[in-house]
Amino acid sequence: MAQQPINMIQINWKPDKDARSSLYSQIVSYFQERITSGDWVSGQKLPSQRKLAELFGVNRSTIVEAMDELMALGLLEGSRGGGTRVANEGWANLIRDKTPDWQSYIKASRFYPNVPTVQIINRLEFESGITRMSTGELSPDLMQTKITQDILSHLSDRKIFMNYPDPLGMPSLRRAIQEHLKKIGIEVPISCILVVSGALQALQLISTGIVKSQARVFVEAPSYLNSLNIFESVGAQLVSIPMDAQGLAPWLTKDMQSGGAHSLLYTIPTFQNPTGCVMPASRRREVLQYCTERHIPIIEDDVFSDLWLDAPPPLPMKAFDRCGSVVYISSLSKCFSPGFRLGWLVGPEAIVQRLADVKMQMDYGVSVLTQQVAEELFTSGAYEQGVQNIRARLKHRRDFMMLLLERYFDGLADWNCPAGGFFVWIRLRNGVPAESLFKRALSEGLLIMPGGVYDRNHTSSIRLTYGYLPEDEMARGVKRLSEMLRTLQPGA
Amino acid sequence: MAQQPINMIQINWKPDKDARSSLYSQIVSYFQERITSGDWVSGQKLPSQRKLAELFGVNRSTIVEAMDELMALGLLEGSRGGGTRVANEGWANLIRDKTPDWQSYIKASRFYPNVPTVQIINRLEFESGITRMSTGELSPDLMQTKITQDILSHLSDRKIFMNYPDPLGMPSLRRAIQEHLKKIGIEVPISCILVVSGALQALQLISTGIVKSQARVFVEAPSYLNSLNIFESVGAQLVSIPMDAQGLAPWLTKDMQSGGAHSLLYTIPTFQNPTGCVMPASRRREVLQYCTERHIPIIEDDVFSDLWLDAPPPLPMKAFDRCGSVVYISSLSKCFSPGFRLGWLVGPEAIVQRLADVKMQMDYGVSVLTQQVAEELFTSGAYEQGVQNIRARLKHRRDFMMLLLERYFDGLADWNCPAGGFFVWIRLRNGVPAESLFKRALSEGLLIMPGGVYDRNHTSSIRLTYGYLPEDEMARGVKRLSEMLRTLQPGA
Repeated sequence: MAQQPINMIQINWKPDKDARSSLYSQIVSYFQERITSGDWVSGQKLPSQRKLAELFGVNRSTIVEAMDELMALGLLEGSRGGGTRVANEGWANLIRDKTPDWQSYIKASRFYPNVPTVQIINRLEFESGITRMSTGELSPDLMQTKITQDILSHLSDRKIFMNYPDPLGMPSLRRAIQEHLKKIGIEVPISCILVVSGALQALQLISTGIVKSQARVFVEAPSYLNSLNIFESVGAQLVSIPMDAQGLAPWLTKDMQSGGAHSLLYTIPTFQNPTGCVMPASRRREVLQYCTERHIPIIEDDVFSDLWLDAPPPLPMKAFDRCGSVVYISSLSKCFSPGFRLGWLVGPEAIVQRLADVKMQMDYGVSVLTQQVAEELFTSGAYEQGVQNIRARLKHRRDFMMLLLERYFDGLADWNCPAGGFFVWIRLRNGVPAESLFKRALSEGLLIMPGGVYDRNHTSSIRLTYGYLPEDEMARGVKRLSEMLRTLQPGA
Repeated sequence: MAQQPINMIQINWKPDKDARSSLYSQIVSYFQERITSGDWVSGQKLPSQRKLAELFGVNRSTIVEAMDELMALGLLEGSRGGGTRVANEGWANLIRDKTPDWQSYIKASRFYPNVPTVQIINRLEFESGITRMSTGELSPDLMQTKITQDILSHLSDRKIFMNYPDPLGMPSLRRAIQEHLKKIGIEVPISCILVVSGALQALQLISTGIVKSQARVFVEAPSYLNSLNIFESVGAQLVSIPMDAQGLAPWLTKDMQSGGAHSLLYTIPTFQNPTGCVMPASRRREVLQYCTERHIPIIEDDVFSDLWLDAPPPLPMKAFDRCGSVVYISSLSKCFSPGFRLGWLVGPEAIVQRLADVKMQMDYGVSVLTQQVAEELFTSGAYEQGVQNIRARLKHRRDFMMLLLERYFDGLADWNCPAGGFFVWIRLRNGVPAESLFKRALSEGLLIMPGGVYDRNHTSSIRLTYGYLPEDEMARGVKRLSEMLRTLQPGA
């Protein structure tokens, strides 16, 4: 788990075809410069020769020639698994004596790298030619840019606050969030609200600020939290708890029975990621009571609830919490703008103060530009208008995805129609390994999420989204996946 | 060091004088509600009765009566050190059985709270009636709000990008930063630039991503880094290295001689925080060579350099770095806007990729609103115009501060005239303890930084700023400090 991958070099350069020096020698010089300056370090891998030829817009033979020269210089070497990498030896006398051994610094740190599949996805999502069939955000064409432009225009008429914000977030924004929360039954003073850079940062602050090494963090099986390594990095252990049709059912296992020192429950009761499941109100009360009796605090992740498509979901568990057992987190990322990086955490004051202190050591708070935009979004009613616009269009997309699945996945898989959010959880039939489908799809530039990322026992499920791709690409992708799926059937 | 303070309760409420129920019973109900709901937890301290009376706008006798009732109910108790706190016992049967023991969660986490003095300052800076004589940011009236409003107005005319940003930051912003860096001699591809939420986050990413437990981090004596606990939280040890008039002088000690596995040097060569010292070009080369020979990577913090007041400072060390030894960090915080929370880190690609992966696990990147504003700031020339405006006015303030010190501190202390930045480092004569002055000043609402925060051997120095207060307040504050200082003289 703690093993650190050595990344591939990144190339944002092309040889100049009009230059006096040859393409070959330009390429050699470029590699020499990047390696001897320490920008690229021992062990980093190179793209394939085919890919390099494409990147530089030169013939493959030119690449072969340049690589030969660089190997002769001792700057590159063949890698055991095939391919080429920046050399460890040879040019050492020249330069290695002076360059710090950065890889050893990376390897010595305790913080885990991202889950490998997630790393691949983080990298590929920004490359051209990739079809993002499972991405965790709404499409750019669903973004309410007009509303945002209007807000910026309003802000440009008034004096912007540009200094350091209050550690908990700007009081005016917290008051706006306080009003927003009242609509879903949460009534708290603003001293119990912490403005954060998205729900992920809230989780990061929790893992850093109140989780102890060896603590158990209970999660739904499957859970988004398994796609992160942040709790493992502080030495905590994620323990999967079974779900039934109504969501989390802790009484189906003995794991949570005794509570246990410093354990926590992490749950997404509304439009759960990745299953899309909604916990009914009665189940929310049952789970809350079960945990309260066992002194297990609950982290309630509520980032999807404004994206309901059929009917508003039940109130969050925090609305029924009379004992300060629930730390509630939400954000603008899923329902309005992923890029704003703005969320909020609601909890007992002692926890909010502790996490604010941790946040002050990490980044001194959230951008005040974004805070002022968010405040205006809430107080002007623009946020409500924006999510209404998004819901109408997202519902159409959801219905279209259901049609596609019925048409192409019938007999190959099972799924439920999600009542909100933008994920559909698809259970492949006949134990087809999702990892195989993931790899096959990736080779054609289709990105899906294999279930194993969310739970080790869900290796035959995949997560797709109807929130990102245009309809024609969605249709092409689902059709292509179904074709691959047929070839992966046992006996096919 | 790892001991966790229990914070004071926060009150943002007043009894309603027009309500039917008495002020006394409203106050009792408010406390009951906040304690039994778990918002306030065992051990949290209450403000003094005098302060409570002031906060609620009621007579002291009403407070005394309400407190008596709450103590009788077992919800409050007297604290050993005087004062009152939320009780541990008594109401337990009622509620504690259900509330998670949050304080034990906080205490069990490995992450250190902020340095106590820094915690006090973080909290007080946002309270009214406090005169911030040492704060680490420019005054709101120096903020270039007009320039920022113009940028927002430009942005409101075009389609805003609102999705998740590239893990390294938006490529268009990185290209703008790349051009900005060329002006100070740093030429790097954009794959070596990571956009971060301020220089503090860069340090946090470094401590989390490439620092090993037990590693030694060399810092200037005194250093800003000693005011943070983030390196200690990952088990590293800060080692102070002496400075002379030209700045850091590692050869004056044996500590850095052998390098040592996974050690790092953290330095602020330009307008050092807190001393204001500028390392001349020759010294920069000497330090770089000294570290390179010993395989000690350098973290170069360059957040102040655009605030030069007399002449541009020497180029950063990163401009001479041919071996990938230097990780360079800078931001908009000190020279343009603290609240934007936008900075950049420049280093070898392998380091940038590792830290981007860590950042993706912490907050998924920097607000795209702020990124787009920053890009426009750099590409339009507005940033350059803004810092020019600030420099002109800051120079005036610096000169005024020098006049004040000559008038009031003559014979009491020594200082140098800072050539840039906004701090002046004042060495008190006769060994007067800065901590005593800090406390005395605090009792009158004057906030200064005692030197001990930056180095344990600099307990007789203080840091003041000329960047924040208006001239009349600056004058009143310096005069008042000098009066206190006279009473603190030995034999006074």
